[in-house]
Amino acid sequence: MNLILLFPEDLGADLRVQLTDHRARHIRRVLRARPGKVLRIGLLNGPFGAGCIEAVSEERVVLRCEWEAAIPARPPVDLLLAMPRPKVLKRLWAQFAALGVGRIFITDADKVERYYFDTHILSPEFYAARLIEGLQQARDTRLPEVHIVRNIKSFLSSEAGSFEGRRLLADPSARASLPELLAGARPGASTARVAVAIGPEGGWTPAELELFAARGFEAFHMGPRILRSDTACVGLLHWVHASLPQLIDNRSKGLRSLNK
Amino acid sequence: MNLILLFPEDLGADLRVQLTDHRARHIRRVLRARPGKVLRIGLLNGPFGAGCIEAVSEERVVLRCEWEAAIPARPPVDLLLAMPRPKVLKRLWAQFAALGVGRIFITDADKVERYYFDTHILSPEFYAARLIEGLQQARDTRLPEVHIVRNIKSFLSSEAGSFEGRRLLADPSARASLPELLAGARPGASTARVAVAIGPEGGWTPAELELFAARGFEAFHMGPRILRSDTACVGLLHWVHASLPQLIDNRSKGLRSLNK
Repeated sequence: MNLILLFPEDLGADLRVQLTDHRARHIRRVLRARPGKVLRIGLLNGPFGAGCIEAVSEERVVLRCEWEAAIPARPPVDLLLAMPRPKVLKRLWAQFAALGVGRIFITDADKVERYYFDTHILSPEFYAARLIEGLQQARDTRLPEVHIVRNIKSFLSSEAGSFEGRRLLADPSARASLPELLAGARPGASTARVAVAIGPEGGWTPAELELFAARGFEAFHMGPRILRSDTACVGLLHWVHASLPQLIDNRSKGLRSLNK
Repeated sequence: MNLILLFPEDLGADLRVQLTDHRARHIRRVLRARPGKVLRIGLLNGPFGAGCIEAVSEERVVLRCEWEAAIPARPPVDLLLAMPRPKVLKRLWAQFAALGVGRIFITDADKVERYYFDTHILSPEFYAARLIEGLQQARDTRLPEVHIVRNIKSFLSSEAGSFEGRRLLADPSARASLPELLAGARPGASTARVAVAIGPEGGWTPAELELFAARGFEAFHMGPRILRSDTACVGLLHWVHASLPQLIDNRSKGLRSLNK
């Protein structure tokens, strides 16, 4: 826990917060913090701040909070993921929030088993706790929005399925590799956000690939190695974050060359 | 299982192989393969090949094997990882082999708890099975070499601790980001291989960082988000593989500019 995350319901009328749950235990036992110590805190979907410890006892920890004026931006990356086996998704939630995702769309696909959706892993009670664990790990306050999409085709044909910014699609049959994707400028598109779509282990069908192409998704391959969904997700989300400067730079480079 | 991996002890005097274990079950139940069908096979640390099914019964599958002449190259990436909590490492072995690692060094560090090493997760019986699972997932035959390093300082000062090619070190206090690392040419160094070092969650100590610097490791940071060791490992190994063309290209670019 690299950030003590507070929730709207923790806040009282004044700037004081009393914690009695696992966060109090963490402050007492792991951080071994004493009165006077200042901790990095965050408000869910709100600002960061400083929490000065006023009292520590077996039952509770009392913090006096000072909040920063700015609220951190939502991570500029959206993920569209064909529903993997539930036990694979279970381990991914915290990593999504840690790596930084603005919106997560868990979708069906022709090659996704229908029964994968009959799982508590997709219930907000389950995933919210894992997402919060990831925020506390990575020091972020912005909870990813989660959408369960039961019909990818009608979703992609609808308004909700239009994504801002650059749209990338992992597809083993694509011609471009990730570095080639970075090298190619797309001057017309806004690149303030990036959306990345990752298919089922059996791949997208030609009909699904056509719909993604019609929505402006650029296909890329991840090389000759076949990766499990969870390995591919973590690898790609990290790659998109590490490559954001170029994914965005390419646009300005493209514009500059147009202006010559 | 995207590749049926065979072991030297499976091979008989002729080109026929009899399988009776989980691989036979996989061929029968998942692939539902019948006599005449040709499967992609690989020999551990050896070539790929084609396995033509001669017979399938409840007890065994008989394959007639034809091997390619070439043996695939060892992945050009080495990993040096400060020992994480055993339960984190447990899930990583298969992903290492799937992502592609030539040599894995699991090391101690000042901020690694000594008792982490008292675990069956570090026994060859345990990790070999997971590595083979990763090879079968990713379609590779080259088993990563595993080395357990109990004293990182004397290791880095020894001959064994000298790595060929480009050497990268994840360090939150570094000035360069990953894209900056890619942009900077290192004309003097051979980049046929890349080694990447990942520290404990508490980071490397200044003394350790100095030893790495003396060994030619270039430090980089992974951005403001604090990632768990397993998330960082998967993200970085994928990034190194995706960036190999540039990590190697930079050298030739550097040489070209020197030759001008």
